[in-house]
Amino acid sequence: MRAEYINPFIASLSKAFRTMLGCEVHRGPLALTVGKTQRHGVSGIIGLSGNAVGMVVLSLSAEVAKKAASAMLLCETDEIDADVIDAVGELTNMVAGAAKAELVGLNLMVGLPSVVTGANHVVRFPSNVTPICVPFTTEWGDLALEVGLAPTPAAATI
Amino acid sequence: MRAEYINPFIASLSKAFRTMLGCEVHRGPLALTVGKTQRHGVSGIIGLSGNAVGMVVLSLSAEVAKKAASAMLLCETDEIDADVIDAVGELTNMVAGAAKAELVGLNLMVGLPSVVTGANHVVRFPSNVTPICVPFTTEWGDLALEVGLAPTPAAATI
Repeated sequence: MRAEYINPFIASLSKAFRTMLGCEVHRGPLALTVGKTQRHGVSGIIGLSGNAVGMVVLSLSAEVAKKAASAMLLCETDEIDADVIDAVGELTNMVAGAAKAELVGLNLMVGLPSVVTGANHVVRFPSNVTPICVPFTTEWGDLALEVGLAPTPAAATI
Repeated sequence: MRAEYINPFIASLSKAFRTMLGCEVHRGPLALTVGKTQRHGVSGIIGLSGNAVGMVVLSLSAEVAKKAASAMLLCETDEIDADVIDAVGELTNMVAGAAKAELVGLNLMVGLPSVVTGANHVVRFPSNVTPICVPFTTEWGDLALEVGLAPTPAAATI
């Protein structure tokens, strides 16, 4: 994946947190995801397709997921319930939707978000795709953004 | 989600297992997925977008995942390694790719597969989408297919 493709996702995540959630995020170093990586307890996943195929994974600690949902819904929540799942899915959708608008040449469409929970879950990409992972810290806790994009395979055009 | 949309996915899963893996699958009753459901240890996830947005989740027991990878790769494997992850991703891609060819009116494109591992993970859809889940049994163990499709939201066309 070309490194410049990650920048619109970083920008859209920062903007979504700042403008919608009132929370500043602080970016850590970019890293290529090689092999199995352990991330956080709640992962929003959304697919991209068009002139490339890809996947965006927004991985939040449970605390960040609950705080983000509370900020979006304007009410406190202290468990990972359906409202938190919807909020994480919507946040993932917004990050992917705003970023794709910047990646005009790829002509991307955004899929439906799903949200994975489970303390020890790991989201892995195909081995021929090396996603880029960006860790962030916030006053609420940690999160990570992972984006993998690959040329559209022949199988996707059947 | 309209119930008839599930049939091409059931057919493509059955065909992929029979022709590529040499394994017959036996379908259980369709069910709407309401709330949190616990499925199997390895989930292949792939997004769909077009005139609808959706997600396909192929959830396999670890045993089925390893046996499927062994059949695809023509060699035995006894751990969930990168080869098994790739095989589950490719299987998910094939199920989604063959089904979308039948759903012509939806003009779907298939994204990049990701594979989630972790014994207690749960994959959840947004609460305004009620996916249809189909359990299957095989000689290797159990699996489940879950498909959620929704009208393309305004957010996806930004």
